[in-house]
Amino acid sequence: MKKTLFNAIAVLVLLVGSASSAFALDFKSSGITEVLEVQQYNRAIHIMAMLLIGFGFLMVFVKNYGKSALTATFLLVSVSLPMYLAISSLSFFGEKSEIEHFILAEFGAASLLIAAGALLGRLKMYQYMILGLLFIPFYILNEVVVLDDHFHFVGTIADTGGSIIIHAFGAIFGIAAAVSLSTPHQREIPIEADATSDRYSLLGSMVLWVFWPSFCAALVPAAAIPATVVNVFIALCGSTVATYIASVSIRGKINAADIANAALAGGVAIGATCDHANHFEAMIIGLIAGVISTVGFALLQEKQEKFHKIIDTCGVSNLHGIPGIFGGLAAIVIVDGLDASAQLKAIAITVIIAVVAGLISGKIISLFGKPTEIYNDENEFED
Amino acid sequence: MKKTLFNAIAVLVLLVGSASSAFALDFKSSGITEVLEVQQYNRAIHIMAMLLIGFGFLMVFVKNYGKSALTATFLLVSVSLPMYLAISSLSFFGEKSEIEHFILAEFGAASLLIAAGALLGRLKMYQYMILGLLFIPFYILNEVVVLDDHFHFVGTIADTGGSIIIHAFGAIFGIAAAVSLSTPHQREIPIEADATSDRYSLLGSMVLWVFWPSFCAALVPAAAIPATVVNVFIALCGSTVATYIASVSIRGKINAADIANAALAGGVAIGATCDHANHFEAMIIGLIAGVISTVGFALLQEKQEKFHKIIDTCGVSNLHGIPGIFGGLAAIVIVDGLDASAQLKAIAITVIIAVVAGLISGKIISLFGKPTEIYNDENEFED
Amino acid sequence: MKKTLFNAIAVLVLLVGSASSAFALDFKSSGITEVLEVQQYNRAIHIMAMLLIGFGFLMVFVKNYGKSALTATFLLVSVSLPMYLAISSLSFFGEKSEIEHFILAEFGAASLLIAAGALLGRLKMYQYMILGLLFIPFYILNEVVVLDDHFHFVGTIADTGGSIIIHAFGAIFGIAAAVSLSTPHQREIPIEADATSDRYSLLGSMVLWVFWPSFCAALVPAAAIPATVVNVFIALCGSTVATYIASVSIRGKINAADIANAALAGGVAIGATCDHANHFEAMIIGLIAGVISTVGFALLQEKQEKFHKIIDTCGVSNLHGIPGIFGGLAAIVIVDGLDASAQLKAIAITVIIAVVAGLISGKIISLFGKPTEIYNDENEFED
Repeated sequence: MKKTLFNAIAVLVLLVGSASSAFALDFKSSGITEVLEVQQYNRAIHIMAMLLIGFGFLMVFVKNYGKSALTATFLLVSVSLPMYLAISSLSFFGEKSEIEHFILAEFGAASLLIAAGALLGRLKMYQYMILGLLFIPFYILNEVVVLDDHFHFVGTIADTGGSIIIHAFGAIFGIAAAVSLSTPHQREIPIEADATSDRYSLLGSMVLWVFWPSFCAALVPAAAIPATVVNVFIALCGSTVATYIASVSIRGKINAADIANAALAGGVAIGATCDHANHFEAMIIGLIAGVISTVGFALLQEKQEKFHKIIDTCGVSNLHGIPGIFGGLAAIVIVDGLDASAQLKAIAITVIIAVVAGLISGKIISLFGKPTEIYNDENEFED
Repeated sequence: MKKTLFNAIAVLVLLVGSASSAFALDFKSSGITEVLEVQQYNRAIHIMAMLLIGFGFLMVFVKNYGKSALTATFLLVSVSLPMYLAISSLSFFGEKSEIEHFILAEFGAASLLIAAGALLGRLKMYQYMILGLLFIPFYILNEVVVLDDHFHFVGTIADTGGSIIIHAFGAIFGIAAAVSLSTPHQREIPIEADATSDRYSLLGSMVLWVFWPSFCAALVPAAAIPATVVNVFIALCGSTVATYIASVSIRGKINAADIANAALAGGVAIGATCDHANHFEAMIIGLIAGVISTVGFALLQEKQEKFHKIIDTCGVSNLHGIPGIFGGLAAIVIVDGLDASAQLKAIAITVIIAVVAGLISGKIISLFGKPTEIYNDENEFED
Repeated sequence: MKKTLFNAIAVLVLLVGSASSAFALDFKSSGITEVLEVQQYNRAIHIMAMLLIGFGFLMVFVKNYGKSALTATFLLVSVSLPMYLAISSLSFFGEKSEIEHFILAEFGAASLLIAAGALLGRLKMYQYMILGLLFIPFYILNEVVVLDDHFHFVGTIADTGGSIIIHAFGAIFGIAAAVSLSTPHQREIPIEADATSDRYSLLGSMVLWVFWPSFCAALVPAAAIPATVVNVFIALCGSTVATYIASVSIRGKINAADIANAALAGGVAIGATCDHANHFEAMIIGLIAGVISTVGFALLQEKQEKFHKIIDTCGVSNLHGIPGIFGGLAAIVIVDGLDASAQLKAIAITVIIAVVAGLISGKIISLFGKPTEIYNDENEFED
């Protein structure tokens, strides 16, 4: 097992090494180009806060699994970023600045963390790392086909903030991998939360909420950033209010996990249209996404899990999967001059690649064992 | 009750919709104007971190009321931002960029969260939302009269960081609302804290401390930002040290709640002079504010509450009210050429509007019931 | 005791006052210079998040000592920043902008927090403040001699991110102070951690990880920031993966404290070369630093403590000391045209000044008493 790990690291190092050829420091005097790149780096930091602190703590709701969730987040990020940078340095997809490459790598890591949310608690730490090594190449494949349209097959799509290629891809990959990985025995073990863990989840959720506009605006031109940022915040306001109303309407009482999760659905759904919608449309998208997501968590999740014979630990299907596809479809209505068939092709291809890639990856990971003792820090951590 | 909510949301949506007319994306090449707006958006993100994570966790000190405090924060922010944007789009107060509008909306949300701190634990979730819907129009009224001097009645004042119009207004509104809302029965129920919650409060406090300079400098011209930022940090250093000394001197031992709260009083008080004071003056303001605030928490709070027959759950009177007014008055001494009568008029009008608005709003909210079971997540949340 | 404190504060205030002479607001129209300074201020905010939230929560692993650790962090920062600004305003070291001065002050505060990590739990709050007042002048002395090369004795060195002058200096100062301060009685008292505190430590660790690139790039010219930032992230990825592998290989199970600490060693070690290394070299430095640091925590710490007859509460020797010196040495191999003898002199002088200064400071602090009751909030805090 460990030999595999060392080999993986060695490959990573060599690949990152090849990236270094494209890289040279040039201390020329600072002009507007340098200033704009520094502003991009700043958004890269915000995204990193979402990846580690946001996703990490959002997953600290499983009782006795806090150390594992946070360490898994650390490892998933630390494996996937160099992996992405190494592959992208082979220059599949045209001219980009160094910091743009890095932001794209962070997008890949975000999608990976979403996928891992479906499997949380049922993998060993080294299996999370293998998941990362398998995920990134498939993610890049989808990016090349759908977003860069490298094969001139899809056309121009609207997905600036990644509703389709980040959120839906990650969620569907995760669920497909869960199909390969979940055992009947595992499905009998309940996932317990405890009282104090809600605060951690809400902390993670708030970190994601706060920095989400930087995620969506990361690669947007400076002139379009203010409108994009305000759109994202409005959509998040909409989904937060809608989540409260839906949660209390459906369940009678508020469910704190609904708030921590579905409040973010507006950010997921606005991704495809964040730089095209007006504020009214952003509010509508946010409200709808909040309702869809809460209905998913409150009414559908159990049925989905039974239907697919899986466990979706963090409910990524209802936070990232369905709201992501909803956001991608909403773009057809909202974005002037958007080629509807391109957008539909993009969604269809993303679903297909994610399903196939997830099934394959799950099968490969299952070769390293399907644990029976799950959701417990004690399996891998000193007390 | 819920019908009211849906109506409120509908109005919000329509109002935000009207805002969208003023909004068009223009992907022109990036110049210094665009760069400066991106820098403003960046400060808007920092302020949002203060609103959700900072204020949210600072309020997680009430035992068994953590989910409620964090969810209330989520809802207050999510209702007030679109509300402010919608009203401000009617263009009462002149020409501002989109991101400046948004930062002003965040200032309103901050003031609202301060007001809510006085009522924390004694409102139902939908009452927090009604509070937000009522607060924002009054807040904008005060802003139009005092800060924009729309009626040419006040004159030019110094309040860049909102000592008067954000902190004092919010605190006084909250206390006035508490006068309308607190019942004798409620005043007999002690507010319990528990050991672990101190860590959350200190987390919230630290988030506020770290990003406070971005709050004060949010709308300051680029050239004045470095001095403003350093002033705010120096004032916070002053109040933090002064709080420790005052806390241990008055009480014999340190009180962790003093540290979490009064350490921030320097930020409250420097608001009015952050872009005018020199560093020496900033340190003096911070030291005095820390002492005033700690004395308030340690010696005055109980008397204040008895006098007004209220509960001030978070002690906003002593963190935001008195230090805010102190900061506003300090400007008269510090800012060269400031019209003292304008500054005094600004404080007086703010106090009057806040008292009247708070009393009215509290009365309206009380129509929706005064809960007897309070400070407990179980009333509204699934366990 | 308190008289001492008041005197110290008075001196601080006067010194900061003298700083104000150099300071005047100039509201000229914004150009590229102002924009670049605003970008520096933004990195100053990120560093402040590391100082308070990052270092603060990383130290909340000692059972029952959370309030103390966070309050000590607050006080150390609040004393050291004005102290540094006051001394630096006397203009020892040439022309710098206001925000550059402030960032250098933050670097000093970071080094102080590292030093304090060795002593955590065995000082009273006012002793932490005295530590801060003693540390900063020595830190500035080392900065003037080694980094500014004021006496033309060292030559030009590579230490942009402070591997030597921030991390190694702070760690060695702290250990030397511990030699003066630790008693045989104290060494018999075990440092207990508890289960929930791991989450706080990991939160602090993640905050440090996320903002570390802003720390290293804080004073780097805009054109070099993208490459510097990516290097730091790659080094952190390397040390995180290496820490996991080393922890599980050495101990059989993962140790959460290893992850929270040694995962950051890549950031410590890349400091000296962050703006010169290529990405391959950054990954190698990160991997080696993670292994060195984990080996230190897992195998060496107990021996080090016995050898020096000290306690190193947070293990700063193995997180900051050894990885810092390793980073400084790595620059000799990596940085083209670097004068190896200058770099070695810089390390040697830093070690000597830190040892002497730490021993002296520890002795002075010990005049104020060596507490026998330690590691317990109850000694100084209301419950």
